[in-house]
Amino acid sequence: MNFASDNWAGAHPDILAALLRANDGAAPSYGGDELTKRVERKFSDLFERDVAVFFVATGGAANSLALSQICPPWGMILCHQESHIQMDECGAPEFYTGGAKLLSLEGDAAKLTAAGVSAALEGFPDRPPHGMPASALSITQASECGAVYTAEEVKALGGVARAAGLKLHMDGARFANAVATLQCAPADITWKAGVDVLSFGGTKNGCLIAEAVVFFNPDDAKDFIFRRKRAAQLFSKMRFVSAQFDAYLADDLWLVMARHANAMAKALSEGLAAAGCKVWYPTEANEVFVSFPPGVEERLIAAGAQFYPWATPGDPAGGTMRRLICSWATQAEEVRRFIEVARG
Amino acid sequence: MNFASDNWAGAHPDILAALLRANDGAAPSYGGDELTKRVERKFSDLFERDVAVFFVATGGAANSLALSQICPPWGMILCHQESHIQMDECGAPEFYTGGAKLLSLEGDAAKLTAAGVSAALEGFPDRPPHGMPASALSITQASECGAVYTAEEVKALGGVARAAGLKLHMDGARFANAVATLQCAPADITWKAGVDVLSFGGTKNGCLIAEAVVFFNPDDAKDFIFRRKRAAQLFSKMRFVSAQFDAYLADDLWLVMARHANAMAKALSEGLAAAGCKVWYPTEANEVFVSFPPGVEERLIAAGAQFYPWATPGDPAGGTMRRLICSWATQAEEVRRFIEVARG
Amino acid sequence: MNFASDNWAGAHPDILAALLRANDGAAPSYGGDELTKRVERKFSDLFERDVAVFFVATGGAANSLALSQICPPWGMILCHQESHIQMDECGAPEFYTGGAKLLSLEGDAAKLTAAGVSAALEGFPDRPPHGMPASALSITQASECGAVYTAEEVKALGGVARAAGLKLHMDGARFANAVATLQCAPADITWKAGVDVLSFGGTKNGCLIAEAVVFFNPDDAKDFIFRRKRAAQLFSKMRFVSAQFDAYLADDLWLVMARHANAMAKALSEGLAAAGCKVWYPTEANEVFVSFPPGVEERLIAAGAQFYPWATPGDPAGGTMRRLICSWATQAEEVRRFIEVARG
Amino acid sequence: MNFASDNWAGAHPDILAALLRANDGAAPSYGGDELTKRVERKFSDLFERDVAVFFVATGGAANSLALSQICPPWGMILCHQESHIQMDECGAPEFYTGGAKLLSLEGDAAKLTAAGVSAALEGFPDRPPHGMPASALSITQASECGAVYTAEEVKALGGVARAAGLKLHMDGARFANAVATLQCAPADITWKAGVDVLSFGGTKNGCLIAEAVVFFNPDDAKDFIFRRKRAAQLFSKMRFVSAQFDAYLADDLWLVMARHANAMAKALSEGLAAAGCKVWYPTEANEVFVSFPPGVEERLIAAGAQFYPWATPGDPAGGTMRRLICSWATQAEEVRRFIEVARG
Repeated sequence: MNFASDNWAGAHPDILAALLRANDGAAPSYGGDELTKRVERKFSDLFERDVAVFFVATGGAANSLALSQICPPWGMILCHQESHIQMDECGAPEFYTGGAKLLSLEGDAAKLTAAGVSAALEGFPDRPPHGMPASALSITQASECGAVYTAEEVKALGGVARAAGLKLHMDGARFANAVATLQCAPADITWKAGVDVLSFGGTKNGCLIAEAVVFFNPDDAKDFIFRRKRAAQLFSKMRFVSAQFDAYLADDLWLVMARHANAMAKALSEGLAAAGCKVWYPTEANEVFVSFPPGVEERLIAAGAQFYPWATPGDPAGGTMRRLICSWATQAEEVRRFIEVARG
Repeated sequence: MNFASDNWAGAHPDILAALLRANDGAAPSYGGDELTKRVERKFSDLFERDVAVFFVATGGAANSLALSQICPPWGMILCHQESHIQMDECGAPEFYTGGAKLLSLEGDAAKLTAAGVSAALEGFPDRPPHGMPASALSITQASECGAVYTAEEVKALGGVARAAGLKLHMDGARFANAVATLQCAPADITWKAGVDVLSFGGTKNGCLIAEAVVFFNPDDAKDFIFRRKRAAQLFSKMRFVSAQFDAYLADDLWLVMARHANAMAKALSEGLAAAGCKVWYPTEANEVFVSFPPGVEERLIAAGAQFYPWATPGDPAGGTMRRLICSWATQAEEVRRFIEVARG
Repeated sequence: MNFASDNWAGAHPDILAALLRANDGAAPSYGGDELTKRVERKFSDLFERDVAVFFVATGGAANSLALSQICPPWGMILCHQESHIQMDECGAPEFYTGGAKLLSLEGDAAKLTAAGVSAALEGFPDRPPHGMPASALSITQASECGAVYTAEEVKALGGVARAAGLKLHMDGARFANAVATLQCAPADITWKAGVDVLSFGGTKNGCLIAEAVVFFNPDDAKDFIFRRKRAAQLFSKMRFVSAQFDAYLADDLWLVMARHANAMAKALSEGLAAAGCKVWYPTEANEVFVSFPPGVEERLIAAGAQFYPWATPGDPAGGTMRRLICSWATQAEEVRRFIEVARG
Repeated sequence: MNFASDNWAGAHPDILAALLRANDGAAPSYGGDELTKRVERKFSDLFERDVAVFFVATGGAANSLALSQICPPWGMILCHQESHIQMDECGAPEFYTGGAKLLSLEGDAAKLTAAGVSAALEGFPDRPPHGMPASALSITQASECGAVYTAEEVKALGGVARAAGLKLHMDGARFANAVATLQCAPADITWKAGVDVLSFGGTKNGCLIAEAVVFFNPDDAKDFIFRRKRAAQLFSKMRFVSAQFDAYLADDLWLVMARHANAMAKALSEGLAAAGCKVWYPTEANEVFVSFPPGVEERLIAAGAQFYPWATPGDPAGGTMRRLICSWATQAEEVRRFIEVARG
């Protein structure tokens, strides 16, 4: 009964198999190999547009490098106050950008709204050179609270961003889960909706180490190779990352895995609600946020369940919120049993 | 009728006279001169304690260097959302610290409260190495809304800071105005109340270019000379800054000037309130924040009055707030006439 | 006939097998898993001392994070002018340290000498706060020109470093090759010789993605977890890196592979010298630097050989130098044939 | 007999007088005042071209901000190994640029040559993204050893820079001394010779605190206002800096002062050479570098003379070199007496 994190799951067998295949013989390093070039092209196919894609070591690197490319050191990045870049990356965005400011905003279920962003911009008016110019907007899809932005919502944010001269970044650590939920084309919720750059995550969804930065306008990626290299994020044996993405994107494996994780979360959420637990946010991806009735948490832990407490600024749950995450590897039996124990 | 900023005022004649006196002959550069050493000692006298003091070019430098000394690049600085370091320094604190995060909080009249700081710390719990460790607390005395922290209020914040392992910084761009209001010893609202480092401003209050960083525990200033130098904030002809502080601190000139500015603001505030203007914050220093009845602003401008609009996150005035600042050089006649014109 | 780089080689089968084994079941993320803890302890065994070890994504990250820990942003790092940190990391050391200066020195075969370091320190005397204080010394073992420091040479450099208050860093991207050559204990050429922190490389020598920073005095690693995380170098699924090191260190696999690469290079070097090629540096590890007689390079390329030109500051070869690298995967037949073609 | 530094001299009376005049009444802050605008235009007149000029607090700030504008964080700045930016600014260029590398080169009398720069570029070939791209060239006029680049020499360096895609920066802390020596128009040795940005120093030559960054192509200054502000280098009471430059440039005062300093240095140099001292570099500005015969230094110090030892990488004088600096305030009698004592 492991609901601690999708990072606790291993890698999908198909992805490991691809890794083994990629190991044969010598291949140019630093991404000069044929496999890497082929997989990079796959991203253009996936997004129905020529994109510039760069593989990096971690989701934090993807987010931080992407932001450093679209925000100057004296610029400001608007984001949610519960966003991963604000709460969980130990200042990597600030480090990589050379000191940009994250202006954190409120919003239900860790989602920003066009109205909220507009209001924030009014409260921090352009007063060069005293105020930092608002330069970027970052949203997380699916959000840190397991909610999903519809294409329309992204479009509205994209519109506000464009009007204010901001570039739009999407943290897609769980992009697969969002696409699986929306049943849309990846393009629909990215560049077609105004997203300039996407952190495309593979690690949480069945890879070992596989994160990518995708620029939808390759001109926006000028000098990015220098940024990645000096951040020590350019793998010498790149083929081992490319191989993961190769398998990940083949035969919709990424969506197959995400659909499974989402379905497990949905079942968990519904089962717990029925068992009298308070479910805090709509379960639209692979995460469930709950408060348990008295005694339930102790019972679950005694039964071997694993999960984490969840603390946020402006916590609505008074410290009682718990986060449950499902992954491609979550078993229906784990979910069934967790609900059963919760029900008592 | 100039109420645009205390930065618009010139320098006090005594300070200019000191500058002229300091010009005689040759003197060691970079602060090695006798005058600088003497003035540095004056700060220890002023604060009734051995302090380490460093002169710098701007208030932004004082704040940013001070913060960089007490917060690591991966640390977090709690501050008010309307604070100067958050709103007006174009990211200098982020730049100087190497990427620390400013966690901005709410609070009346740009003042933080011990309870507010405690709540913020709970919303951003210690989760090394994911969350940035809260490392410093910064308050502004007098605040950006012209309010003053009492010694008790500073002490309460100092207590919260110490308990949470935070160093306490005070932005004292208008420290003189606060001391003048409180009629206390400088020590009472600084180190005796838990302040670790103070940005001691002179420029806004009658100097030309004179800002200082004061560490109340000289051990906290280890390697600070390197920080100042590499920030290009070490004046070669330091004596010209030292001379200003020499005169500033002589015969309580700094307090004489601040008392005058405060008195002018008080008269202005009371006069405007009586004239039917909405005064937004308690006028405890040299700033007045008002909304004018319809037609009044136009009349004032036509009469040659100078002042700025004031925009803040969560603006209670719906964009109508105006900021009026008095200085050591404000004349009673300017205040009288401004009120007269406002009254109509 | 691939002598382009040890980064072009794949991973050793034992290491891939370990990766597969590590994939079973769920495991705590970010290095909280049992495997990671066990492998970390292996490093203490290997170095016969309690060490603090941190896994990262690239050799550039290992070097840059290590240096950022032992050198302040205003400090200076002495290194060789041909060192990887000076020539090949696109400023990662400067980025990670927050702006430290690399003072690059000359020396035969990319090796520094105690005398050379002493002379450099005299030419950059301590003049606080104007000059940057010399804070760290970095050497590469084996060097970028394929030479190896003896334990005595490291000790002499360690002595100079200690006397001048510098921490000593060793870039061990090819540490295995050096140990294989010297037939010494890893401790002999590291902490016993004055090394404070080692970048311990696995990738070039048979791993996929496996680099480590090893602090020989765990107290020196204070707050390093924050540095690694904010550099976005903390893997979420750490077990996949730990597994590689697990196999790498088992049964001396790392030395078995390095010995093979060294032997191949030795054979190549001797064969080419006998064939009338100019060999520039002693072949003490897995790299050979040669200038070919006229016509030879063209013949080799026509025969399918792969290798790179090598340019350095103060190039002794007038642009004719070529670098040949052997790896754990180099076959004797490749070496034999390369020499044969070179001989013509 | 003060030859310690031109920074030890006070300010010229005309400059102090201008300061006093500027003090009258209120004036917009942060450079919005009329005086500042007028003085900014004076720079365009001086350089016979529309320039963008920015006043800052120190020469270190001028250099570092200028370099940060023309070199990306991952770029490389070629400079002399004895240059002020390499030896004396405690890493400010690295800090302001966000981690650029200074590639230090040799050259007589602290001057670079076109040939030397070309050779250095060949030794650090373009290998993106591994090597940092060479982005800027910085020269000092007059040089740190008191030598002056002719217009032809600057032009040759400008040609090399342009051909290699480097921007050319000139550290003009002693620009006045160079112009006085060359008797040329300021334009001749700056933009007409390929200089893109100049640090124009006033402090060493009779001002109190007055340094400027001059971009000869205003388009190159895009976003520079943000850089200056976030570096905390934007003075609130800017008029006090502008006033200094106003007087400095009036009636050629800057050249009058520089000519005097140069003449004093020339007399000192010739007198000491005649007295048997070793003069190391051509005395082309206001600095003299000497080694004294045995016993002379002691005699001079006993007589009250003040000067500094001078240490450099590759010191030709074996530690015996001393630096003597003259200023606008040096008196002929000081020079006469110093020579007399030296002669014994």
